[in-house]
Amino acid sequence: MRQAGRTLPEFRELRQKHSFWEICTTPELAAVATLQPVRRFPLDAAIIFSDILTIPAAMGLEVQFSPGIQISPLVASAADVDRLPVPDAGRSLRYVADALRQTRAAVGPDFPVLGFSGAPFTLAVYMVEGGGRAGFARIKSLMYGQPATLQRLLTKLADAVADYLGMQIEASATAVQIFDTWAGELAPEDFTAFALPAVQRIIERIGGRGVPVIYYINSAGNLLEPMDASGADVLGVDWRVSLAEVRRRLGETRAVQGNLDPGVLFGPPALIAARTASLVEQTKGQGHIVNLGHGVHADTPLEGIAAFIEAVHACAPLEVAP
Amino acid sequence: MRQAGRTLPEFRELRQKHSFWEICTTPELAAVATLQPVRRFPLDAAIIFSDILTIPAAMGLEVQFSPGIQISPLVASAADVDRLPVPDAGRSLRYVADALRQTRAAVGPDFPVLGFSGAPFTLAVYMVEGGGRAGFARIKSLMYGQPATLQRLLTKLADAVADYLGMQIEASATAVQIFDTWAGELAPEDFTAFALPAVQRIIERIGGRGVPVIYYINSAGNLLEPMDASGADVLGVDWRVSLAEVRRRLGETRAVQGNLDPGVLFGPPALIAARTASLVEQTKGQGHIVNLGHGVHADTPLEGIAAFIEAVHACAPLEVAP
Repeated sequence: MRQAGRTLPEFRELRQKHSFWEICTTPELAAVATLQPVRRFPLDAAIIFSDILTIPAAMGLEVQFSPGIQISPLVASAADVDRLPVPDAGRSLRYVADALRQTRAAVGPDFPVLGFSGAPFTLAVYMVEGGGRAGFARIKSLMYGQPATLQRLLTKLADAVADYLGMQIEASATAVQIFDTWAGELAPEDFTAFALPAVQRIIERIGGRGVPVIYYINSAGNLLEPMDASGADVLGVDWRVSLAEVRRRLGETRAVQGNLDPGVLFGPPALIAARTASLVEQTKGQGHIVNLGHGVHADTPLEGIAAFIEAVHACAPLEVAP
Repeated sequence: MRQAGRTLPEFRELRQKHSFWEICTTPELAAVATLQPVRRFPLDAAIIFSDILTIPAAMGLEVQFSPGIQISPLVASAADVDRLPVPDAGRSLRYVADALRQTRAAVGPDFPVLGFSGAPFTLAVYMVEGGGRAGFARIKSLMYGQPATLQRLLTKLADAVADYLGMQIEASATAVQIFDTWAGELAPEDFTAFALPAVQRIIERIGGRGVPVIYYINSAGNLLEPMDASGADVLGVDWRVSLAEVRRRLGETRAVQGNLDPGVLFGPPALIAARTASLVEQTKGQGHIVNLGHGVHADTPLEGIAAFIEAVHACAPLEVAP
């Protein structure tokens, strides 16, 4: 998961000198932050250091971290939606492509480096709710009161995300991930009506280039079947649903990513090893990117992270299905 | 759902004169607040005006709303847990029983008045995390690092909740509800190991008295099967899982409560009517307490609430299974 860096002393040192947003938007710094976890731990991939709010910023909204997210002005009406531009990714988001290229130059051609973007619904939540999301009253009000306006916003965001991920693929991303932090807030029928078509629109544009697309939903358990209709190559899920259940509901061969509770890394190494082994057992290690089910807590002990990675590698090499 | 009152002008007027906590702890005021929604809308039941943090307060912790919840001191160690008393409900929580009796006197013997309590795991989260629950790092750290300490805390809270709900039953509650706001944060195996046994312990003590026990989990979809093992008479679920799926997984006769997305009440009356009809259709109106899937947003239009209640009553009278 992204921003594993924030647990590392070397990242905190970088943050002494540069703001979070400065690191995101300065390719040299983003590449340094991307590589910090890879240099410290025997990881099998890196994920570009960035933030899901790059797109709202590129659309001209002001994004602040103080430390909670503050976005202004809020998107509240059809006129607000019409006023938002689809950003020219190659210009206003070029810093992400540059960070990817610099990371690629450092790790060589074969090491996996993942790109990512926020999903349209999640970006819409931030843009409509701003900082506070108590009860998601504003986005729900828009969804049920002015559904066509929300649809237009989601379509515009889908086009922006597709351009953005396409640029990351051209800049050598090995795979790209679409993060839907807030889609799990939706009843299945609303997910299918609003969040899903926007993701499908993205994947229609960027899929099929030989670069896997991972679609992650936080609190995905109620949405597995419609999520599977997204067209993503890999489904990323949080720890609240077991991978055994994902396989039961979506078939034995569905590629998945996840999903240890990041809180487990607070436990002793023996617990971490046991929970990791049980996780891998659920998929028999087939079509499974072993990962946490969400981001690392900032105050996770480094020993816990090391124990998790060691436990993954300790899983007996599994026969790969032909 | 509790605190529907906060959307009402008459409740806001009451709040001009009294703090939230003062209303909770003063039986006359709590009874007034309980009855406000019943006087305004043709509701089929009332729920006592109270808060889930009455138990931590009765255990001697300081509970503040400013406006976010602040609890101090935090429960952080085995010694902290051992120091907490199981409150004498009849003394330190008597104000809730008195509020129930006053409400009962006002509505007469036949109108349903529900009592409630926070569930042990949810109370433990508030007591361990205090105000901020960013990532639930403290409770996870306790769960995975010192599981026996968390178990002891949960057992103590279960005993306190059982006393408290038993007192509410004696004070004429028609049914009692156990709210597990945060259990949906847990992977199924951790729910089964920690949150569930505490609820089972409560229901073993207060079940079977002819007063139904409703167990509500927010984000329940991944926990339906273990939740069903709680022994509760009715399962309350949020809107993120469809009642059709609950019935599919737990059987066609399982009594349920819920689960319209409270955000739907921001929509026009025709949408509210259609979504309500579709909700009732999922259970054929059998063994179903029609309700929202979570609390009413504070700024919900009163017309939306009225439209929901009207829509429920407009559902054709259904044949009751013999």
